[in-house]
Amino acid sequence: MTSTIDPKSIGKPQRPRRHVRTLTGYLPEVDVTGKEKWPKGEEEVWKAGMRGVDKDVSDITKSFVNHAQTSLARQAYNLDDFGAYEAAALAARDDLLVNWNETQLNYTRKNPKRAYYLSLEFLMGRTLDNALLNLGLKGEFEEGVKKLGFNMEDLLEKERDAALGNGGLGRLAACYLDSSASQEIPVWGYGLRYQYGIFQQLISPEGNQLEAPDPWLEHQNPWELPRLDVTYEVRFYGHAERSSDGSGRANWSGGQEVMAVAYDVMIPGYNTKTTNNLRLWQSKPKRGFDLNSFNAGNYEAAVESSNSAAAITSVLYPNDHTSTDLANEATVGKELRLKQQYFWTAASLADILRRFKNTGKPITDFPDYAAIQLNDTHPTLAIPELMRILIDEEELSWNQAWQIVTNTFFYTNHTVLPEALEKWAVPLVEHVLPRHLQIIYDINMYFLQAVEKKFPGDRDRLARMSLIEEGYPKQVRMAHLACIGSRKVNGVAELHSELVRTTILKDFVEFEGVSKFGNVTNGVTPRRWLDQCNHELSDLITKTLKIEKKVWLKDLAKLEGLLAFTEDKNFREQWAAIKQRNKERLARHVQTTLGLTVRTDAMFDVQIKRLHEYKRQTLNILGVIHRYLTLKSMTPAERSKCNRKVVFFAGKAAPAYYIAKLTIRLIVNVARVINADADTKDFLQLYFLPDYSVSLAEVLIPASDISQHISTAGTEASGTSNMKFCLNGGLLLGTVDGANIEIAEEVGENNVFFFGHLTPAVEDLRYQHAYHPVPIEQKCPALAKVLNEVSAGMFGDGGVYEPLLNTIRQGDYYLLTDDFDSYIAALAMVDDAYLDRDEWIKKSIRTTAKMGKFSSDRAILEYAESYWNLEQTPVS
Amino acid sequence: MTSTIDPKSIGKPQRPRRHVRTLTGYLPEVDVTGKEKWPKGEEEVWKAGMRGVDKDVSDITKSFVNHAQTSLARQAYNLDDFGAYEAAALAARDDLLVNWNETQLNYTRKNPKRAYYLSLEFLMGRTLDNALLNLGLKGEFEEGVKKLGFNMEDLLEKERDAALGNGGLGRLAACYLDSSASQEIPVWGYGLRYQYGIFQQLISPEGNQLEAPDPWLEHQNPWELPRLDVTYEVRFYGHAERSSDGSGRANWSGGQEVMAVAYDVMIPGYNTKTTNNLRLWQSKPKRGFDLNSFNAGNYEAAVESSNSAAAITSVLYPNDHTSTDLANEATVGKELRLKQQYFWTAASLADILRRFKNTGKPITDFPDYAAIQLNDTHPTLAIPELMRILIDEEELSWNQAWQIVTNTFFYTNHTVLPEALEKWAVPLVEHVLPRHLQIIYDINMYFLQAVEKKFPGDRDRLARMSLIEEGYPKQVRMAHLACIGSRKVNGVAELHSELVRTTILKDFVEFEGVSKFGNVTNGVTPRRWLDQCNHELSDLITKTLKIEKKVWLKDLAKLEGLLAFTEDKNFREQWAAIKQRNKERLARHVQTTLGLTVRTDAMFDVQIKRLHEYKRQTLNILGVIHRYLTLKSMTPAERSKCNRKVVFFAGKAAPAYYIAKLTIRLIVNVARVINADADTKDFLQLYFLPDYSVSLAEVLIPASDISQHISTAGTEASGTSNMKFCLNGGLLLGTVDGANIEIAEEVGENNVFFFGHLTPAVEDLRYQHAYHPVPIEQKCPALAKVLNEVSAGMFGDGGVYEPLLNTIRQGDYYLLTDDFDSYIAALAMVDDAYLDRDEWIKKSIRTTAKMGKFSSDRAILEYAESYWNLEQTPVS
Ligand SMILES: Cc1ncc(COP(=O)(O)O)c(C=O)c1O
Ligand SMILES: Cc1ncc(COP(=O)(O)O)c(C=O)c1O
Repeated sequence: MTSTIDPKSIGKPQRPRRHVRTLTGYLPEVDVTGKEKWPKGEEEVWKAGMRGVDKDVSDITKSFVNHAQTSLARQAYNLDDFGAYEAAALAARDDLLVNWNETQLNYTRKNPKRAYYLSLEFLMGRTLDNALLNLGLKGEFEEGVKKLGFNMEDLLEKERDAALGNGGLGRLAACYLDSSASQEIPVWGYGLRYQYGIFQQLISPEGNQLEAPDPWLEHQNPWELPRLDVTYEVRFYGHAERSSDGSGRANWSGGQEVMAVAYDVMIPGYNTKTTNNLRLWQSKPKRGFDLNSFNAGNYEAAVESSNSAAAITSVLYPNDHTSTDLANEATVGKELRLKQQYFWTAASLADILRRFKNTGKPITDFPDYAAIQLNDTHPTLAIPELMRILIDEEELSWNQAWQIVTNTFFYTNHTVLPEALEKWAVPLVEHVLPRHLQIIYDINMYFLQAVEKKFPGDRDRLARMSLIEEGYPKQVRMAHLACIGSRKVNGVAELHSELVRTTILKDFVEFEGVSKFGNVTNGVTPRRWLDQCNHELSDLITKTLKIEKKVWLKDLAKLEGLLAFTEDKNFREQWAAIKQRNKERLARHVQTTLGLTVRTDAMFDVQIKRLHEYKRQTLNILGVIHRYLTLKSMTPAERSKCNRKVVFFAGKAAPAYYIAKLTIRLIVNVARVINADADTKDFLQLYFLPDYSVSLAEVLIPASDISQHISTAGTEASGTSNMKFCLNGGLLLGTVDGANIEIAEEVGENNVFFFGHLTPAVEDLRYQHAYHPVPIEQKCPALAKVLNEVSAGMFGDGGVYEPLLNTIRQGDYYLLTDDFDSYIAALAMVDDAYLDRDEWIKKSIRTTAKMGKFSSDRAILEYAESYWNLEQTPVS
Repeated sequence: MTSTIDPKSIGKPQRPRRHVRTLTGYLPEVDVTGKEKWPKGEEEVWKAGMRGVDKDVSDITKSFVNHAQTSLARQAYNLDDFGAYEAAALAARDDLLVNWNETQLNYTRKNPKRAYYLSLEFLMGRTLDNALLNLGLKGEFEEGVKKLGFNMEDLLEKERDAALGNGGLGRLAACYLDSSASQEIPVWGYGLRYQYGIFQQLISPEGNQLEAPDPWLEHQNPWELPRLDVTYEVRFYGHAERSSDGSGRANWSGGQEVMAVAYDVMIPGYNTKTTNNLRLWQSKPKRGFDLNSFNAGNYEAAVESSNSAAAITSVLYPNDHTSTDLANEATVGKELRLKQQYFWTAASLADILRRFKNTGKPITDFPDYAAIQLNDTHPTLAIPELMRILIDEEELSWNQAWQIVTNTFFYTNHTVLPEALEKWAVPLVEHVLPRHLQIIYDINMYFLQAVEKKFPGDRDRLARMSLIEEGYPKQVRMAHLACIGSRKVNGVAELHSELVRTTILKDFVEFEGVSKFGNVTNGVTPRRWLDQCNHELSDLITKTLKIEKKVWLKDLAKLEGLLAFTEDKNFREQWAAIKQRNKERLARHVQTTLGLTVRTDAMFDVQIKRLHEYKRQTLNILGVIHRYLTLKSMTPAERSKCNRKVVFFAGKAAPAYYIAKLTIRLIVNVARVINADADTKDFLQLYFLPDYSVSLAEVLIPASDISQHISTAGTEASGTSNMKFCLNGGLLLGTVDGANIEIAEEVGENNVFFFGHLTPAVEDLRYQHAYHPVPIEQKCPALAKVLNEVSAGMFGDGGVYEPLLNTIRQGDYYLLTDDFDSYIAALAMVDDAYLDRDEWIKKSIRTTAKMGKFSSDRAILEYAESYWNLEQTPVS
């Protein structure tokens, strides 16, 4: 006898073990009267076993002990804090899953239109505290773990950040997920399950940034639900042959096939049962181990195919979209990143389509049931991918398909910096995704024909608007593709959206009309960024407003009520005392992690964000040096009248971004000198806190008196940490850029500190730098002096810093020479203002009070209403 | 400020998150009165949460539903059979963990001497059914899942075999673990957690074996407990520098460092709380992703180091110790296998030593607390590794160290086939393990000096006994190293142990004395191999003996009581009816998996084991052809008097073992012809069942009337499937080899069918073949005829089989020409005996009745008493 072989079954167990996929979306059967039938076994027995969310402390301790005993196989005498964190996390996870199940069932039953947020980055930070807050069980868990001999704060500290993002873009995605769930909007996130998140930053004795891998999955991750049976195949390379029947269809075959496996992360809403889903894909080899090569003795070849598949989701690329080194990457890295993007969009689209098809609606209804938000251009391949599926698999006509596509996608732009706009070399796309290149060319052809029709003979315009940029090699302009393939396009703050319309997509506005181009100013979730990270302040607000926390945390405009209390001395004192305790908490943190003593009787001045020339940490450190030189030149008596100040920096530099890394080195070495100088150290301290992360931000932000957001005007799309600082009563020192402008609009210009040239001036200033340069000594003597001291070796070998200093001396693309004087003047105003403590506290209260607009709830509701056309769908 | 970097912390989170390792072995503190203090929190709260083993059906259904709802995030309406298997497994796992915790605590408290069973293979098969049997909860779980709408048998079928072994050696290890736990002996197993188990066998339309990978971990494995915080570093390559102080110590540094991570598999004993542990190591990179290469754009280099670490435990080598192709493997494969062996022994030893050191005893007491059993020579590197630790790290003298080593290890030999004795090329060992090669040379020097002292001037003897075999390259003889480094050496059946003493280790017996060389005849666990796989027979036995199952299953000699019932007709009828139903079950299995209809009114003749020339599946298939030719030549009337017979084969061939694969091809093609021949098919059917596994054995063994164990005398060390067949009332057709001999001793020669030449004749026969060959037509005309039919194309192109036929025509190393006639005669006796149905059933009962000796409980108690010097240590 023989068994004939189905090649598809190779590597699968041979006995008949097929089982139905456990995808969400199955509905109970109904009987003739329409009543649901109990699907399996005895209803009472099932129901007796089903659990709700544990609400009592005793249920919580039982669940904790049970997980310690079984899931972790530990006992009271060998359970350490980390194990206790795990047990608590598993107990909370069970509660989340109860709600998650109900939410998914609710969506399946009601079948509302859903939105899908495709983001290559989700910078979630820690989960346990947030999960308990949103479940409303913080107090109960705290009490429970205490009874079991643990301190909740210590356990929370054991959790490792989920750091699947570089910075703002990824953290924004995380805030939006929180708000979607909290506002009961049917939104799923789609991303990648990187084995290694953003690198861990270490500082060498010389002050250099070193990067270490972030093996965040080293321990089991209680916050995800592996869905090992939810898989899709994704193809790369191979051949695409167009059919000869004129249908425009093609057959794409051969090449490499890789499996995408789903891991679901539960996203609980605040004070609601709604628990949405973030689905992260992990790559794995389709066939597993290549036994043929293995048996032929070629072990290396045997593991190779499995490795090349696994590599796709191995690591988050540490280059953020504004770093200039992307263009210098080696081809392998580029190819892998392209594969990463396609892998993720293809798996996500397949999953979205499968869910839609389960509803039995015709494919032309797709845009009525699914809105897909493209977070920056990273997922733009979803556009040709959906075209491919609709044309080659669903066999629609080009026009039908394009109609569906352009009603499905929405594109958020995150930068207008020309060097940061994503482009892919045509030969690379052709090699990796031959069918998609055909489709992109087809899209381009139809598109340019339409442009030519509207603007006949305007060849420059055609060249500017083409999806393909001429050159060697030719490149695909992803922003153009995202723009024309989407129903709407938005920027992330008023100024930035205006710049999108008037600079990089100007031609498209002229062609498609301005109404396609909108704005949704970013927001942040007040749950994490106020209640969690600054619990005392949140309690004070609740007490003062006499509004329940669960109300105002979801309707942040209520904060305005605080304005009435600015004149209440008692309230102000409490407000100030909380800020002081937050400073002390930060100081303790620095003491335990770095062994350094921070003085807390000083103003805390904070700049924390990715290192980048456009964000101008250099301006800040040069300002610090200037302050130091000024203090040094004073008599002790003069100094004693000065405002005491501690300056904090934190942030990572892209590993290949040489200038940014030099800035870190300068900061670290300036700190070393300043903090050791007996003359000045009572008045000025400086710290670079390594390994910036969400968790570190949660300690820094509530402690800040003033924070700096000082990008060259027109370069920062929005910023979100500015909102977080202000929400916590920190004042803002910034340029007229990004969301700073809208913050000032809200709190009033006299409560923020603005300086520097405005956006319209920038282009002209750069022209002057290039064609009519003025020597720096003449243009800005104060700055020249600072640069000279650095050169001269005040902070160690000056030669090291020459390349950094030269970016200012020559070209000065980011306008430090233009803005330095007004920056120093602004700092002086800050000092003056801070010395009037009472008025400062009032400013602080007014700032927090006017942050209502910057809740990500507002932002997500704008998306839901004005873009996706979604409805709130509470679990009922 | 800067943070100075401890390179060891790279890749670890930087904040202070260190936590105590959660190794087993922590003991509660005691107060002054010696009473244990409750270690953490409120005792009542902990105790209220602690669970025991769920005994009630309602607790079981609750646990099941709870796991479905939370661990699996499914609900009644989307839980399929596979999900239900997972939920049931998770519920059972919790019960196992309760006992596992108690057992480990018990051992820690009592600190008995422990044994460690080091085996590169553990062929566990499925776990759920066995776990429930041992927990005593089969009935309760069956009832529970029924109430929830499932059928237990269907769920059991969903489990995938854990197939981390090639065959007998690995299955023996699994039986020994079951018996150790059942007999409450403190034994831990140590092995490797291969990502891919033994390959899955497929049969191509031509009848060729194809191999597919076995990704058994594709779904989550409920039977293991990841111990991600129990890790050890293992070094490869680098340099070993001897110190110049004459201490014999050396410093080994550099090279590659890899992490070993522990996964614990719970091993429940039958009808006892004792639940032992099997610790499997998985390799992982020490530093994770190589970010430097990555940032330099060299993605491939970045993943390389992580891959080369992960590769170590990627795959179980499919070459068993008796396959001849090991010598032909490419160097990469060899090097990786050596790394596999060292990785596993080094991690295991480190773990064993750590546990010992926790007790605070001096290192010289080590052999009083740990016995380490080497399952074949695979873990022999443990000997130089322990020397290395004792000398280089513990700083003992050579003699002290050697004293400890030779009192710690025990070595089980599994083969006397010269080509199967493990050897490693000296240059390879030097490259991978430079320090160990030094130690091996040192051991050899001291050893040979002692030999020379006892047998002065006997240079041949020195050369024969040396650990190093001369040649190009030189080779390390692992069996010699294992022998001299151990306290005792044993074979696995009487004959085999005698052959060990008189052939491969003869010189060592003369040198060290015969008392070091013992025998422990293999055994099998009657829980899996009788009660689980043949539940009806087990029930009948219980009923008949009137002894509780939990008694006789742990005291298998009780089976002898069945002898009294051989004359009880009613009992015999029940006995026969059960065999018949087992045949029908097998037939159903073949029908559902292969779509073929097996007749059940025939004798079932089974040979299932790895394909190998020494096991002589070829003899069997040639016998089948002979029977076919005979049947063909009969008249219908003659045929109608013949015994109807169905022959089953199953077994895998090592992928590179050409001759063994040809045998499979021949079997498959003979089956195709025979089963289609209308003349004979009512009298002879033939099946090759693909993908032999433990689960398949569990269906085949209870259905067999006769099984074949027909190795050339002196080649099969023991065999264990022979015991399993006999335990299930199957009769034995075999050569006078391995454990067949002892089985015959027990059941009496007239209840088994023996044939063929005896061991002492073999050498002489081979000499005759080589120097005085007799043409096959003359020596064995019946066989010659069969070979000619094959050559002539009766079963498809004869040319294909020439290489196989030539092994018989030329040289005939395995003596088919010598044994064929007596084999055919024995088959005729079997036929005659079977036709006397009543007498056959009596033989069957007598066979089962006398299997008491072959319980692995007996074997493990022999090890515990005569080798390891361990005591039973029940949980109390
Ligand atoms: C870790 C991390 N990186 C980056 C950002 C974004 O910072 P910004 O808005 O200042 O660019 C945040 C915001 O809180 C953050 O927490
Ligand atoms: C899957 C498997 N392989 C190999 C063996 C060992 O077979 P034998 O003792 O016949 O070599 C067994 C024993 O049951 C088995 O189950």
